[in-house]
Amino acid sequence: MEASKYPSLHVRTERIQADLMEMARMTDPELPYTRTAFTAGDLEARRWLMGKMRDAGLDVRLDTVANIIGRREGNQSDLPVVMLGSHTDTVRAGGRFDGMVGVVGALEVVRCLNEAGWTTEHTLEIVSFTCEEPTVAGLSPFGSRAMAGGITAAQIDSALGPEGNSLAEAIAFLGGDAARLAEAYRKPGDIAGFLELHIEQGPVLEREGVPIGVVTAIAAPCRGRVTLVGSADHAGATLMHERYDALCGAAEVVLGVECICAAPDLVDTVGTVGFLAVSPNMVNVIPGRVDLQVEVRSTRQGFLDRVRDQVTRTVHGVAERRRLEVSMEWDTIEEPVPIPERMQRHIQQACDELEVRWMSLPSRASHDAARIASVTPIGMVFVPSRDGKSHTPEEWTEFEDITRGVAVLGRALMRLDEMEEG
Amino acid sequence: MEASKYPSLHVRTERIQADLMEMARMTDPELPYTRTAFTAGDLEARRWLMGKMRDAGLDVRLDTVANIIGRREGNQSDLPVVMLGSHTDTVRAGGRFDGMVGVVGALEVVRCLNEAGWTTEHTLEIVSFTCEEPTVAGLSPFGSRAMAGGITAAQIDSALGPEGNSLAEAIAFLGGDAARLAEAYRKPGDIAGFLELHIEQGPVLEREGVPIGVVTAIAAPCRGRVTLVGSADHAGATLMHERYDALCGAAEVVLGVECICAAPDLVDTVGTVGFLAVSPNMVNVIPGRVDLQVEVRSTRQGFLDRVRDQVTRTVHGVAERRRLEVSMEWDTIEEPVPIPERMQRHIQQACDELEVRWMSLPSRASHDAARIASVTPIGMVFVPSRDGKSHTPEEWTEFEDITRGVAVLGRALMRLDEMEEG
Repeated sequence: MEASKYPSLHVRTERIQADLMEMARMTDPELPYTRTAFTAGDLEARRWLMGKMRDAGLDVRLDTVANIIGRREGNQSDLPVVMLGSHTDTVRAGGRFDGMVGVVGALEVVRCLNEAGWTTEHTLEIVSFTCEEPTVAGLSPFGSRAMAGGITAAQIDSALGPEGNSLAEAIAFLGGDAARLAEAYRKPGDIAGFLELHIEQGPVLEREGVPIGVVTAIAAPCRGRVTLVGSADHAGATLMHERYDALCGAAEVVLGVECICAAPDLVDTVGTVGFLAVSPNMVNVIPGRVDLQVEVRSTRQGFLDRVRDQVTRTVHGVAERRRLEVSMEWDTIEEPVPIPERMQRHIQQACDELEVRWMSLPSRASHDAARIASVTPIGMVFVPSRDGKSHTPEEWTEFEDITRGVAVLGRALMRLDEMEEG
Repeated sequence: MEASKYPSLHVRTERIQADLMEMARMTDPELPYTRTAFTAGDLEARRWLMGKMRDAGLDVRLDTVANIIGRREGNQSDLPVVMLGSHTDTVRAGGRFDGMVGVVGALEVVRCLNEAGWTTEHTLEIVSFTCEEPTVAGLSPFGSRAMAGGITAAQIDSALGPEGNSLAEAIAFLGGDAARLAEAYRKPGDIAGFLELHIEQGPVLEREGVPIGVVTAIAAPCRGRVTLVGSADHAGATLMHERYDALCGAAEVVLGVECICAAPDLVDTVGTVGFLAVSPNMVNVIPGRVDLQVEVRSTRQGFLDRVRDQVTRTVHGVAERRRLEVSMEWDTIEEPVPIPERMQRHIQQACDELEVRWMSLPSRASHDAARIASVTPIGMVFVPSRDGKSHTPEEWTEFEDITRGVAVLGRALMRLDEMEEG
């Protein structure tokens, strides 16, 4: 292999580990690894992160939707920026790696560039996006979607934050200003390219024994809200054939979603009822109402359309047969995002140069990168997840795997910086 | 028909209606007709009731588990007491009649006896029992169970009140003293007989067009707690065949309970999953844990045993097939309570004397009477429920039907007073 024209980055495992474990301490005290977007814990972690970014010499600002942006000037100020980033908010009882690895990894790349004395041609922006996890119904991932111009003022006006306040108030709590939403928008051409390092959140890399995944496409999530209303009668006095039990109907929906998505011809397609609430939820009252949320994801548009249609028909069929009132609305309909081949090649060649084994695989989870993809070419680097677990306190990635991922991210950035005009 | 030796009681519909509607105003402001036992709303209604009982000349006291007892001296102080009563607590989003009709009806009987100048031979006690509804897991109906000696100090020590405090604190909040639990116990022979007026909570009387039901047996509720634990993995990144979805398992349990209880040979037997809670309950996380409560009821011991056994095997079968961790505990196992024929006859003959049509029927709901039955002969009078609805704000019984029920209750009391030695 010829000598590289790029400097070697001395990625420091101990710095990455210290940053990740420090962030893990900032959690809802009641629940492990819970930093719901727009809460006090989120704010605390964001402030800490901005301090670390300033320590690395970045010029740190918030955009109007409170995305944290750290800027490192490039040699050519007339070029569009190149961007690295991810998020630091979590689901409830989530993990210490999902999102954080991409933010801390980007920060480590900056520290390594500083230590190597390397200035990129394009100005580099490190971004920690506001509210990637589905805290705001229908609008998450929020910060990246807004940056790509995919959020309107009307959507913000009608949405609620996680603590029952308005979304605009929640954004203001983090230091944003929803009234100036449009200032957060980036247009095509503003960003030369975006790279995101992330944990796989699935078992493939671990199973195959390959340390780096080059993402080929990002699956799209579609989310629907279903309400079934029956009759909350006395559970002792109402015979079985006299009942309109909303939970029995909901149970058929849950199993219907599972059955539909288990069809053998569906590839990279999943469906889940992750949220379900029963009312009045008392042992001796027949459930009168169930609200549930269903999510389907696929890397293929055709499968996504088919599953969504089958789930909709199942819900209405159950309601009709059981004589339940029903409402169903798909409030999030995304499309799968293919990743440009030349962006995949930057990452593949970074791996080859660093003599790290890689494989191609789709991302079945969605990411900020998928939302930014409408205004800039994106690339994604995956590192292995132990037992494929994610969105749970057991989520784990070895620090040496993260270190390798950061090295690949840094080298891919340098290739992108050289080769993309924007 | 020969002239009765008993005085006619001039039952006043307007007094009953005023009392019931006054009590309906005392509710959790957030939720219609919610007066959960041991809450501030419960306390408010109890204080109001004690005032009305004193207005009717009763000597009112609380026993040590906070049962409200209003005493009216009889002619023969050496006889055991006769007792009328029910409860005034409700389920969440419950109704205005379940329980209250029996308490207000007993109070109206006292007012009518006063107006008729009639003194019973036995001393009469009117009781409003503490916490009939399943607010305290495994111990409800609480006050009547305790009065019958069916609650131990150890059970109180390990139970929680509805607001997370100890049950002993909850009892103290209502004015009881759990440390002196045993003083609330009544022995066989202490009570000559107990009569409870109640709404049917089912559709039979309305459908048959009969105003009074004479209860033949009270179905027993058995309640079980089930926990299924799977793996709270990422809902996008975990393929269908890699999942351990606790909610899919729970859905099979819900439908299994329904299917088991729909067997055509099961008479007067029902099963319900009324409570179900998902964790972490987020749209993009596979449910890692579900807690649910199942209730089965029957008037026949054999059916109850069979259904409980089938449900237990279903739960374990689902868990094994889906490789979920499971725990299941039946924390309430009651036996059906047959009602003594001579107690049924007192009510039937009261109806005949008052020229009110009646029919025999079982009670599929449980009642305070079922718990008191271990220390005294019980009888139950049912009045019709519109559309059979109960435990819901739509619960309704016509005031003229309640008036008729109170008249029957009063006459049955006078027959009991004359004929039972205790």
